[in-house]
Amino acid sequence: MSRSRSQHRKRKGRHHTVRLARPGTPPGVLLPSPSASPAQIRAVAYGPEGCEVHELSLQDLSRLDELHSGCAVLWVEVIGTGDAELLGQLGAIFEIHPLALEDVTNAHQRPKLEEFEEHQFLVLRSPTLIPHDAGIPEVSCQQVNLFLGSDYVLTIQQEPSEAARLIRERLQAKKGRIRGFGADYLAYALVDATIDFFFPILETLGDEVDWLEEEIVEGRRGDALQRIYALKRELLELRRIVFPLRDVLAHLSRGEVEFVSQGSQLYFRDCYDHSFQVMDVLESVRETASNLMDLHQNAASQRMNEVMKVLTVIATLFIPLSFVAGLYGMNFNPEASPWNMPELRWRFGYPMALGLMAAMALGMLAYFWRKGWLLDAPPTPRLGPRPL
Amino acid sequence: MSRSRSQHRKRKGRHHTVRLARPGTPPGVLLPSPSASPAQIRAVAYGPEGCEVHELSLQDLSRLDELHSGCAVLWVEVIGTGDAELLGQLGAIFEIHPLALEDVTNAHQRPKLEEFEEHQFLVLRSPTLIPHDAGIPEVSCQQVNLFLGSDYVLTIQQEPSEAARLIRERLQAKKGRIRGFGADYLAYALVDATIDFFFPILETLGDEVDWLEEEIVEGRRGDALQRIYALKRELLELRRIVFPLRDVLAHLSRGEVEFVSQGSQLYFRDCYDHSFQVMDVLESVRETASNLMDLHQNAASQRMNEVMKVLTVIATLFIPLSFVAGLYGMNFNPEASPWNMPELRWRFGYPMALGLMAAMALGMLAYFWRKGWLLDAPPTPRLGPRPL
Amino acid sequence: MSRSRSQHRKRKGRHHTVRLARPGTPPGVLLPSPSASPAQIRAVAYGPEGCEVHELSLQDLSRLDELHSGCAVLWVEVIGTGDAELLGQLGAIFEIHPLALEDVTNAHQRPKLEEFEEHQFLVLRSPTLIPHDAGIPEVSCQQVNLFLGSDYVLTIQQEPSEAARLIRERLQAKKGRIRGFGADYLAYALVDATIDFFFPILETLGDEVDWLEEEIVEGRRGDALQRIYALKRELLELRRIVFPLRDVLAHLSRGEVEFVSQGSQLYFRDCYDHSFQVMDVLESVRETASNLMDLHQNAASQRMNEVMKVLTVIATLFIPLSFVAGLYGMNFNPEASPWNMPELRWRFGYPMALGLMAAMALGMLAYFWRKGWLLDAPPTPRLGPRPL
Amino acid sequence: MSRSRSQHRKRKGRHHTVRLARPGTPPGVLLPSPSASPAQIRAVAYGPEGCEVHELSLQDLSRLDELHSGCAVLWVEVIGTGDAELLGQLGAIFEIHPLALEDVTNAHQRPKLEEFEEHQFLVLRSPTLIPHDAGIPEVSCQQVNLFLGSDYVLTIQQEPSEAARLIRERLQAKKGRIRGFGADYLAYALVDATIDFFFPILETLGDEVDWLEEEIVEGRRGDALQRIYALKRELLELRRIVFPLRDVLAHLSRGEVEFVSQGSQLYFRDCYDHSFQVMDVLESVRETASNLMDLHQNAASQRMNEVMKVLTVIATLFIPLSFVAGLYGMNFNPEASPWNMPELRWRFGYPMALGLMAAMALGMLAYFWRKGWLLDAPPTPRLGPRPL
Amino acid sequence: MSRSRSQHRKRKGRHHTVRLARPGTPPGVLLPSPSASPAQIRAVAYGPEGCEVHELSLQDLSRLDELHSGCAVLWVEVIGTGDAELLGQLGAIFEIHPLALEDVTNAHQRPKLEEFEEHQFLVLRSPTLIPHDAGIPEVSCQQVNLFLGSDYVLTIQQEPSEAARLIRERLQAKKGRIRGFGADYLAYALVDATIDFFFPILETLGDEVDWLEEEIVEGRRGDALQRIYALKRELLELRRIVFPLRDVLAHLSRGEVEFVSQGSQLYFRDCYDHSFQVMDVLESVRETASNLMDLHQNAASQRMNEVMKVLTVIATLFIPLSFVAGLYGMNFNPEASPWNMPELRWRFGYPMALGLMAAMALGMLAYFWRKGWLLDAPPTPRLGPRPL
Repeated sequence: MSRSRSQHRKRKGRHHTVRLARPGTPPGVLLPSPSASPAQIRAVAYGPEGCEVHELSLQDLSRLDELHSGCAVLWVEVIGTGDAELLGQLGAIFEIHPLALEDVTNAHQRPKLEEFEEHQFLVLRSPTLIPHDAGIPEVSCQQVNLFLGSDYVLTIQQEPSEAARLIRERLQAKKGRIRGFGADYLAYALVDATIDFFFPILETLGDEVDWLEEEIVEGRRGDALQRIYALKRELLELRRIVFPLRDVLAHLSRGEVEFVSQGSQLYFRDCYDHSFQVMDVLESVRETASNLMDLHQNAASQRMNEVMKVLTVIATLFIPLSFVAGLYGMNFNPEASPWNMPELRWRFGYPMALGLMAAMALGMLAYFWRKGWLLDAPPTPRLGPRPL
Repeated sequence: MSRSRSQHRKRKGRHHTVRLARPGTPPGVLLPSPSASPAQIRAVAYGPEGCEVHELSLQDLSRLDELHSGCAVLWVEVIGTGDAELLGQLGAIFEIHPLALEDVTNAHQRPKLEEFEEHQFLVLRSPTLIPHDAGIPEVSCQQVNLFLGSDYVLTIQQEPSEAARLIRERLQAKKGRIRGFGADYLAYALVDATIDFFFPILETLGDEVDWLEEEIVEGRRGDALQRIYALKRELLELRRIVFPLRDVLAHLSRGEVEFVSQGSQLYFRDCYDHSFQVMDVLESVRETASNLMDLHQNAASQRMNEVMKVLTVIATLFIPLSFVAGLYGMNFNPEASPWNMPELRWRFGYPMALGLMAAMALGMLAYFWRKGWLLDAPPTPRLGPRPL
Repeated sequence: MSRSRSQHRKRKGRHHTVRLARPGTPPGVLLPSPSASPAQIRAVAYGPEGCEVHELSLQDLSRLDELHSGCAVLWVEVIGTGDAELLGQLGAIFEIHPLALEDVTNAHQRPKLEEFEEHQFLVLRSPTLIPHDAGIPEVSCQQVNLFLGSDYVLTIQQEPSEAARLIRERLQAKKGRIRGFGADYLAYALVDATIDFFFPILETLGDEVDWLEEEIVEGRRGDALQRIYALKRELLELRRIVFPLRDVLAHLSRGEVEFVSQGSQLYFRDCYDHSFQVMDVLESVRETASNLMDLHQNAASQRMNEVMKVLTVIATLFIPLSFVAGLYGMNFNPEASPWNMPELRWRFGYPMALGLMAAMALGMLAYFWRKGWLLDAPPTPRLGPRPL
Repeated sequence: MSRSRSQHRKRKGRHHTVRLARPGTPPGVLLPSPSASPAQIRAVAYGPEGCEVHELSLQDLSRLDELHSGCAVLWVEVIGTGDAELLGQLGAIFEIHPLALEDVTNAHQRPKLEEFEEHQFLVLRSPTLIPHDAGIPEVSCQQVNLFLGSDYVLTIQQEPSEAARLIRERLQAKKGRIRGFGADYLAYALVDATIDFFFPILETLGDEVDWLEEEIVEGRRGDALQRIYALKRELLELRRIVFPLRDVLAHLSRGEVEFVSQGSQLYFRDCYDHSFQVMDVLESVRETASNLMDLHQNAASQRMNEVMKVLTVIATLFIPLSFVAGLYGMNFNPEASPWNMPELRWRFGYPMALGLMAAMALGMLAYFWRKGWLLDAPPTPRLGPRPL
Repeated sequence: MSRSRSQHRKRKGRHHTVRLARPGTPPGVLLPSPSASPAQIRAVAYGPEGCEVHELSLQDLSRLDELHSGCAVLWVEVIGTGDAELLGQLGAIFEIHPLALEDVTNAHQRPKLEEFEEHQFLVLRSPTLIPHDAGIPEVSCQQVNLFLGSDYVLTIQQEPSEAARLIRERLQAKKGRIRGFGADYLAYALVDATIDFFFPILETLGDEVDWLEEEIVEGRRGDALQRIYALKRELLELRRIVFPLRDVLAHLSRGEVEFVSQGSQLYFRDCYDHSFQVMDVLESVRETASNLMDLHQNAASQRMNEVMKVLTVIATLFIPLSFVAGLYGMNFNPEASPWNMPELRWRFGYPMALGLMAAMALGMLAYFWRKGWLLDAPPTPRLGPRPL
């Protein structure tokens, strides 16, 4: 998927490219996206005593059986879902149900756990932050398909993921106890690493919220509103992923799931806990973003209020004065009649008029003072000390 | 139901034509809508070895038994619910409960699954998008009544549907495994095809939301508000259909339902998954539409703010100046008294007045500058880069 | 309850006349409302072979036993709850628990189902639309108390209801299978007829919503806001009735209820379905009404925006021009000093001033044009075609 | 608690005087509030044959045993929780768990039911309306502690309550069947009487809502907003009491509670029903109050709209006219040049100027007319008849 | 964690420092925060007969076994989580699961209860109020890790807490029954003391809400809006802690938890009750704060309304008058034509003009009076008496 073209369009158009198959297509028909790059196959065969990594081609798939029998746990990592033949062969080797295979090619599944006789089929979504050069970073979520059998793990995903790389390195580096445990522990490690990647993303989005709050409070002009809006959309998107993930993990940690040992359940429980934390932070950021919208609205109307007050003060102060000035600017001819503007010829006519204006102005100002319209709001009302 | 007349009226009046029977009518009384066109009856008899399609008339109904016995699965497709006699005969042939028959004629049921001894009675709603020539496309939902017996499927609907056509073609075209499975698989295929049609509709509505967002952000005049409102109504309508549908599928996939084999349950589970996806997308579009309303409100008040600021700046700048001009436009007679406007005769009276005005204007401008009212908002605030 | 007096007061005061008994009154004390008219008693004795209707007086109550024994099902219909003696006798004859009798007289119960040894006690609320001559039609809900025994039904309500009349006519007219079924079917028929009356009421309220929407979109002056508000109140009221009704029907259709046969459960399930439909429509109308409030708010602020723009354009256009005019209206004496307004005596002074004004006006207009304030919103923005 | 001092402060400060014990205090330490008046002890010994009421002092507590043995049911009513010694003795006599005793002295419990071996411990809150002389009546809730044993009821509360008085009178007056039932019925009677007191309070608050609605619709100046706000606070407070009460009653009516006989369960079920009704009315009043806030906001913005329209009409009508007048008020000397304001000397110069003004005014008025700004909103838009 | 530096930054940045481990880190790897001060270890060995407190160093850890065997209950209190070696040794002594140890060092857990074979692992959060010198007090929550075995309690926290100090003093002071009970009672006492500290914090936040309400009602200028916003954030934070805490306590009080005796369950039930009270108060403060936002918005728009009315009254009063004055200030030469402003030479021209102005002003005032715009809102509308 070329990400360089039109990020803006893509961000907006995200929620409607959900299921590409034409309505009425029979189930189990594989519809790999044609633009995908050629698939990579990597077999990681390990046990307590060692770990071997083999890069395989489509022709080498038959070697999987041999690798499988020579190690405690076999992890087959497939990158690229675009090759229908490869998927078909994998399906045959690992006895994957056509419906599961269809879900693999249709990369818009929600996280879920499906039990089959031969294996557990786990769908995750692994988030990445695309550092949008302008505006809010965008979250892109890759679908990770994980099949957990008794002594193998098969993962199929469209692009290489950081989480898988980290686990592979741990396997190779003898770090941790991971080599001594079974396939279920490997699955756990992959799931846990995937969840871990939610935290830095939420941190970035949380920072964005904080920065937006500052922008709004200081009333800087800009696109705060659209940014909040876009941010909420990203968060909504994330929520749609994390929510079902939690259910999946709850199920895995409760321990009636085949191929997951009692010991690993404890680890999945920990994982479940982490998903709860993700949800917690997510909800917190979401509620804060919602409050920001209110804050923005309120701040805007407060500023408008201030603008109106200045207009009102100036206009109501000078309009009556201008009227008086206009009054004595009339051209009634004092010579035509003694009733015509005799003030114009009074000795103190002009001072009297000025005095009248001054009196009117002072009266107005007193009124405004009483109303409290003459005091400016404090210039930077950033949570000053509360008077006690 | 003639759709050509008054779409606008119909859109608005949608939610109150729900149950047409006069209150107190006894149950099981068939009230076919009189305007319906004459019914079509089509029998699709198939098995692993072949598939025959027969168009039947009301008189041929007795042939159904014969057709039934000569094939593995019989699918009777009835288009048109307006013929009470036909429904009565079908009821007799397939032993349909009067209450179920009543539901068939009263085409305003929510999706549901009812178990009878002879068959499962499944009510779906199949959505179509009516391309409204003006404004938002309207979603129209046809009721699909499906009776699933041990080796037959009976579907009754008011108008021909795309989904049924697709399945019929698959049956005739030998595509897929569909001919080799039983009646429950046929039911699944019909349900799945119906659900598939929700996706393009949601895509269209999602596009509409995106287009509306753009309209609002760019502040183009128009009917954005009413469009959002109408859109929310369509989405609410869809939600009312999808929500119970999910429950129905949950029930079918859980596997205590008669006439549904273990193998087909797996397919219904997949279907259930799809209904979840529909719900997900639907909720996402709905929340986005709700946010749009806020965005609209906020954008409108932001624009108003700007309008007010221009008014305030201009008015408060010139009103005091006009007052000074008015002051020296008064006609007090300087000759009548030395107190009367001696400024008019000063050597630098006019420049002094101009200077006074300039000073006032500059003071005002400085005040506005400090307030930040003189800077225009950036012309196109479409998520510009965030300064770091 | 005299409905003619003050509908408006009553509408508003509705939600606080809930329980009339003085706090601390012992349970089971009957407090019939004194203003009720004298009670009517009607016994409908029927069976497959016939149906007799007897109007009874208080003295004839002893005949009930005799009537009861001579027919398959006895339906005793009591209109009027104001006669404590009558209720006492009925309580004795049908062995009604004092608490149930108290609920009968206190006509503010929510729909509920209470099981007693002798019978099921069912409380319904039957809605009527009072065609308010001004404004929104008001929904009034009468309490229907229904006792279902093994072979009798006793209904007690304050005023005659349409639903009961319809069922009675069906019993007399030999229409339907109703005579051949037991008392539970009669109960079902009464409940179903009661629910059926919700639909026309919801239709009327839905029409009201549609009409209000039109009023708001077209910005016609009026009381739209108060109407929405009153409408929401009516809908809230209806919801309070329908919600518990659904629970009651769920219970009846699930089939662990005594005096309800397996066959009738199927009918109650249909009834339950209808209550779901009522709820659906109700919720849809409610959400639409809520959206209307937003629409109103938005439409109002949009109109205000427009008003402000006209004010701003006119005021900011002419205020500077007026200032220039005022400037050259000043009376500085050009003869007193060459610095005093020499422009007044220039050959092209006046055209120059006019030119200055025209330039200012054009500059302003250009600014407004760029801002897009000079274009009027389209006059009737009723969901026009979307440009593609 | 002296209520006379500062109602306003107290209303606001209500929600933070929740638990007075210093953090870290060991459980079971009694902290009676020191300001409480001396306690009153009253023993009501009754049975089917009679009822005796004894006022006891702290020294007479030993008589309780003797009284207990001489009657069917003993009700010990203690008013005042300020005497640690008394509570200690009661605890010893009735074998009260220290935690329960602590709850008695700490009068900020939510309604709850706790089962101990010796008795059920029931905490209720009994509401009273304090007729605030200015503004919204305030709801004050007293904690009622009720211990229900096999043949005794012990109630401890801070101040005498109306509900207890009514039950005592019923016991003495031979009214009702109360004397013939056991201690559980007495507990029921006390609970029921307490719940009954919610209804008049809700009625008063509902009246307040109605009155506020009228105020808002008629746009009368005042403190409507703050009143709604205060009202919502009271309702929130009530909700916090009623909600857990319902759970308590659900538990009591479901019948696995010791010391509550089957017969009394039926009565508690009735009670449960009443609590549902309270909740219903409460929620209805709450939603109405919430809608009022919207109504207020909308009504205010509608009025503002009207104000703005008047300003706009007047200002935009006269500002251009004033400009023309100002134009011809300029002092360009017509004698200095034929280009300088020759109009001033035209024969019909003045009528022409007047005509120009009239034309401008008429043009403006026509524009306003088309916009619909000249029509006043109907003066009293109180739900007038809908045109059909 | 140095709190003195930048409170404002920290407040905002709170919700994103959740999990510090790099994604992909294997579970059970301890990542103690390097800045933590050296750990303190304190062993409190007690029984009915006495209580000894020992301060231990890392080297003395081996003495724990000896201390453990010499007393009824051993409480090991560790302050400081920064020392990986210490944690490792503790893990070995108390057989702590690596995942639990990891949770101890990663101090961002939600409250939870995890059952291990050797002990219960309880995570709490203990709140402290940091008295922000400017603005809203900030709530900081320290993680408390508590391991409850059969006869020991191990608590690990980052900084010393008040709650632990209080319990230690109670143990030393022979107060209460605490010494006579087992380790579960000690755990209860610690949990209860922790919960108790929520109450004064909520009281402070509730006071803040009350103070803000007053500020808003009296319309004092300031930062009310940002304060509400910050307050809601604190409350949201607290809610995230209290909500799961309630679940933990519900679990502990229900009594299927090992190491918790039946007697202690009663105490935990009391604790559960307190957590409910905390939640109740919290929700009440939260809803009040939410209402405050509405109140603020409404109050602001009400004030704006008032401002607009003054502007409208003054402007619409004087603008027409000014026009008349301007009219007669025109310089049409009455000598050039009899049609040119003959009024200027009329005998009563000037009084006529004044009269015209007065008539216009009075007409306007009458209009405003009828509209009710001339009456000022009552100056301090603080819930005045309702007219009856």
